[in-house]
Amino acid sequence: MDQELRDIGLRLHGWAADLFPVNRSLTGEGVRQTLRYLQGLNPELTIHSVPSGTTAFDWSVPPEWNVEEAYLEDEQGNRVIDFADHNLHLVGYSEPIDSWLDLEDLQIRLHSIESEPDAIPYVTSYYRRSWGFCLTDRQRKSLEPGKYHAVIDSRLEKGVLNYGDIVIPGDTTEEVFLSTYVCHPSMANNELSGPVVLSAIAQWLKNLPARRYTYRLVFIPETIGSIVYLSTHLDHLKSNVIAGFNVTCMGDDRCYSYLPSRAGDTLSDRAAQHVLSHIDPDYRSYTWLDRGSDERQYCSPGVDLPIASVMRSKFHTFPEYHTSLDDLSFVTPTGLAGGYEALRQCLYVVENNTIPRATVLCEPQLGKRDMYPATSVRGSANSSRLFRDILTYADGEHDLLSIAQLLSQPFPTVCVAAETLRNVDLITCE
Amino acid sequence: MDQELRDIGLRLHGWAADLFPVNRSLTGEGVRQTLRYLQGLNPELTIHSVPSGTTAFDWSVPPEWNVEEAYLEDEQGNRVIDFADHNLHLVGYSEPIDSWLDLEDLQIRLHSIESEPDAIPYVTSYYRRSWGFCLTDRQRKSLEPGKYHAVIDSRLEKGVLNYGDIVIPGDTTEEVFLSTYVCHPSMANNELSGPVVLSAIAQWLKNLPARRYTYRLVFIPETIGSIVYLSTHLDHLKSNVIAGFNVTCMGDDRCYSYLPSRAGDTLSDRAAQHVLSHIDPDYRSYTWLDRGSDERQYCSPGVDLPIASVMRSKFHTFPEYHTSLDDLSFVTPTGLAGGYEALRQCLYVVENNTIPRATVLCEPQLGKRDMYPATSVRGSANSSRLFRDILTYADGEHDLLSIAQLLSQPFPTVCVAAETLRNVDLITCE
Amino acid sequence: MDQELRDIGLRLHGWAADLFPVNRSLTGEGVRQTLRYLQGLNPELTIHSVPSGTTAFDWSVPPEWNVEEAYLEDEQGNRVIDFADHNLHLVGYSEPIDSWLDLEDLQIRLHSIESEPDAIPYVTSYYRRSWGFCLTDRQRKSLEPGKYHAVIDSRLEKGVLNYGDIVIPGDTTEEVFLSTYVCHPSMANNELSGPVVLSAIAQWLKNLPARRYTYRLVFIPETIGSIVYLSTHLDHLKSNVIAGFNVTCMGDDRCYSYLPSRAGDTLSDRAAQHVLSHIDPDYRSYTWLDRGSDERQYCSPGVDLPIASVMRSKFHTFPEYHTSLDDLSFVTPTGLAGGYEALRQCLYVVENNTIPRATVLCEPQLGKRDMYPATSVRGSANSSRLFRDILTYADGEHDLLSIAQLLSQPFPTVCVAAETLRNVDLITCE
Repeated sequence: MDQELRDIGLRLHGWAADLFPVNRSLTGEGVRQTLRYLQGLNPELTIHSVPSGTTAFDWSVPPEWNVEEAYLEDEQGNRVIDFADHNLHLVGYSEPIDSWLDLEDLQIRLHSIESEPDAIPYVTSYYRRSWGFCLTDRQRKSLEPGKYHAVIDSRLEKGVLNYGDIVIPGDTTEEVFLSTYVCHPSMANNELSGPVVLSAIAQWLKNLPARRYTYRLVFIPETIGSIVYLSTHLDHLKSNVIAGFNVTCMGDDRCYSYLPSRAGDTLSDRAAQHVLSHIDPDYRSYTWLDRGSDERQYCSPGVDLPIASVMRSKFHTFPEYHTSLDDLSFVTPTGLAGGYEALRQCLYVVENNTIPRATVLCEPQLGKRDMYPATSVRGSANSSRLFRDILTYADGEHDLLSIAQLLSQPFPTVCVAAETLRNVDLITCE
Repeated sequence: MDQELRDIGLRLHGWAADLFPVNRSLTGEGVRQTLRYLQGLNPELTIHSVPSGTTAFDWSVPPEWNVEEAYLEDEQGNRVIDFADHNLHLVGYSEPIDSWLDLEDLQIRLHSIESEPDAIPYVTSYYRRSWGFCLTDRQRKSLEPGKYHAVIDSRLEKGVLNYGDIVIPGDTTEEVFLSTYVCHPSMANNELSGPVVLSAIAQWLKNLPARRYTYRLVFIPETIGSIVYLSTHLDHLKSNVIAGFNVTCMGDDRCYSYLPSRAGDTLSDRAAQHVLSHIDPDYRSYTWLDRGSDERQYCSPGVDLPIASVMRSKFHTFPEYHTSLDDLSFVTPTGLAGGYEALRQCLYVVENNTIPRATVLCEPQLGKRDMYPATSVRGSANSSRLFRDILTYADGEHDLLSIAQLLSQPFPTVCVAAETLRNVDLITCE
Repeated sequence: MDQELRDIGLRLHGWAADLFPVNRSLTGEGVRQTLRYLQGLNPELTIHSVPSGTTAFDWSVPPEWNVEEAYLEDEQGNRVIDFADHNLHLVGYSEPIDSWLDLEDLQIRLHSIESEPDAIPYVTSYYRRSWGFCLTDRQRKSLEPGKYHAVIDSRLEKGVLNYGDIVIPGDTTEEVFLSTYVCHPSMANNELSGPVVLSAIAQWLKNLPARRYTYRLVFIPETIGSIVYLSTHLDHLKSNVIAGFNVTCMGDDRCYSYLPSRAGDTLSDRAAQHVLSHIDPDYRSYTWLDRGSDERQYCSPGVDLPIASVMRSKFHTFPEYHTSLDDLSFVTPTGLAGGYEALRQCLYVVENNTIPRATVLCEPQLGKRDMYPATSVRGSANSSRLFRDILTYADGEHDLLSIAQLLSQPFPTVCVAAETLRNVDLITCE
């Protein structure tokens, strides 16, 4: 990994550390705080508000949830669990409560994982009123019999759902769509890696000297956010989006992963498979049956956007998933740098993947353009092989990505050689 | 195997035992007797007669053959071979003879199998006048030199070819076509298993509360019968048949077998492969080159009906094939029950294989329909996975069978879940 | 290998021996001498001349090159290298020179192969003026320090490029296109095997009692020759050519090889793969990335002729390639006979590959045509299996080649059986 990429990794890890303590959920102050921070990284980000109760296809925007404090106190007044210590301690969307309960009555309100005694699990109850606390199994087993005071000072009331988007214009109205989510509290791989990588991608895209495509980046609460966004942008997205990625789980160091779009063979899929095969030939390839994030909506029947996913360790597959162990020691600067670079390379492929067409019939005479050795000895033609291989597939049917695949070459190698051929007018590119 | 299925197996074996002694051939009293017995099981069965000499494509209906008696007598008046003992003793379609021959002249009229000394082979000479006797090789070797009196009191004369058919109406005129044959004398797997299984299938079909498709079941002499049937029903069948099976070799206990249609990828083929893979993952899969029964006609060029075969041990592959050893000890109640059940499941797939289409864009909110857990913890979504997997493929392009294949689930599981989704109006089915 | 084929191999080897010493190049007297010799084998061959400077697509016909003598002389007047000894000693298209050089200044003008000390390499400089000598590395290392007299009495002047062609008419104007090259000096596999095999193929084609297709055979200098030929015949070839082969490397005994057309699935490809799989199941199958001869032009984008290659050892893959070791001991009579026979069988497939269509619906009654046994016993139908297998695929969609593949039979077996079926009017052939 080169130094520039290392530096990017460190920067991303710093952003994630800033955002880690915020109590995000589908709605509420934590989401707004997060979006405002991301706006600081990319001032073009617009923050939108959708009122509670708004209908989006089969769904309705839930009430806004905010929490003042929440704790569990024993008879001696000790706070044995406190939301202030870790925001995973509180079940997401817990309704307000102020009540004394016997430990045995309390048990059904407690969530822990027996097999992972040091992990606080992540639990939510978005769409049915409930409340509860999460704790490590070790903590739970240490609770003495007796009475406990459960206090949750939360509000569930009409408010708004927030999301952010950035549109970075290009030479055409065809769009590349990138989505990540901002609704999980203190977890690093399955959440913060996504928004920080996508923020860095936005900075990279803005700095490109030119862009063929327009880039649309959205920062939304998962599921309800993508459904709301689709419900208000469906026609536009279906008409314009030519590729895209759902950005999640981009930050650990263990592996690279690919999850296909529902169609499985879109440009996004082809780019992802090509890029990952060159970064890590052992990358993990999942199927549509392994889906689990907003690709569920983007690729649903009738929506059918070409959205694939490149990830480090995929959601649901790492033991830290949806627990307090998914933290900033599991997610590392090099892990984030690798996730960023994989996505950046995919976008490079999409942006530069033209269809070359030869301008002359038969092989051109490369020699007169100094692209072929003057003296022909055994093996001397090898130096011009890449040019000739690109030319032989420059039939208006193969795009550069399929040519790179045919030649077992990384896309940039083929792309640069094609640019040389275009400069001497031996191909045109559409 | 559940008790109901065991009972069906016993019932089928009893029917086969009743029909076993009858001397069936392409034509004659034995076929009529058999069809009348089957009419007793399903009174809707209509018996048809086609006069000898009727042209059917490249063929002509042969004369009707009936036998009073046939035997081979030695000089002492002992009947060393007697048609009355086993109807395989007589070459099918033997012309009449009454003649004394030396053993050595008789030999070319005798048929036995050296490698299977206890089997009487099944031999016919339908389309060229001839006569002969079949016997075990052990019997043959015990024949003493000397003169023998060959007596065959048979008639080959203008008459009729008979076949039966049943049409069980459904909600549409689209048809499922099922064919079996009634032209083999005393053999159990390669013949009687077919008509008895198909008779039980007819009873099952009639008792269904509703049928989407019309079911056409034919009981015919093999080859000439299917050719005659096609010659008079071709346009109707080509216009209406959407799936079908040739029903043969349904009664032994050794294995399950699949023979494709000529096209290889029809609904019948897909249903057969799916059902057998769930009944017995080690089922034997043959190719079109292994064909041998009436599928040869139903799938011939220009006919092209979607007819596949599910079988137990396939014709030509078991040592008892076309000998007296293919009897009711080789064919068993559980063997027949298994054959019946495999075919019934294939028909269940065909009948219920609709194309679901989601009624809402994006994933529906299953929670508000109590189809998703209220509290979201790690793994809690698994219980609703089947619903969500069906919905994600409910795009109007995948039928339930292809969805079952994608999900590695048995068809009924997917079918029942789809019915639930239809009941809450989340999908429509075409 | 039968005697007739052995005799053909000996005849071809004799022709190659006659042509071996001639100094061929892109142009010049050696090419004309070669074409005149080939005209002796097939008087129908027409020799064409294209003036130097003629434009062909991106190329221009180079000046004509002829050599009177060329040698390297030491200070004692010994000719240490002499073009008269072996015409590979001179770099192709060397410009005239008459000059004394120190050995160290001479070195950049000398070409040898360190790893093959007894091979004179083949070197050319067609499109940039240069000169040089080629020698074995052993010779090179034995050169004493001192002055050397380099003499090349060559002419590079306006003249012509020559090529030959033969058109053998058939019943239709659809064409089979066969191309080989005549521009390499004394090398046997990578050159002379091509023109001698193609000359024998011409003789075979002319002697066929009938030809469905017209056959066009061209003998050209590689690359510039095929480009020139395409530039003047493109529309005709694109409209008429239905199959074809580039004929090269047909003479050694080591293996058989197949190089696909760019499309990869043309009739030529299918014929080549079928034929080679029956001649040698271990034949080597290359990809379009391994191309290197005139198929580069014939299959280039916008030209797209269906041209594949069957070879013995493919160019670039044998150690003798493009050196003096590629001689008439490496190329053998049996090697040439094998190359000839492989190509002849491919042409037999192309010529006879009709699409059969059954004339009757359902299976025909083969018995009444004596094509099926009168008495049916177990296994008796095997004798008619080939007929029935052809008939079942005679649906107007499968050609005989695809049927041969489905049946795992050599094409001629299927072809002969189809002819029998045609003779009894059970199929028509298109």
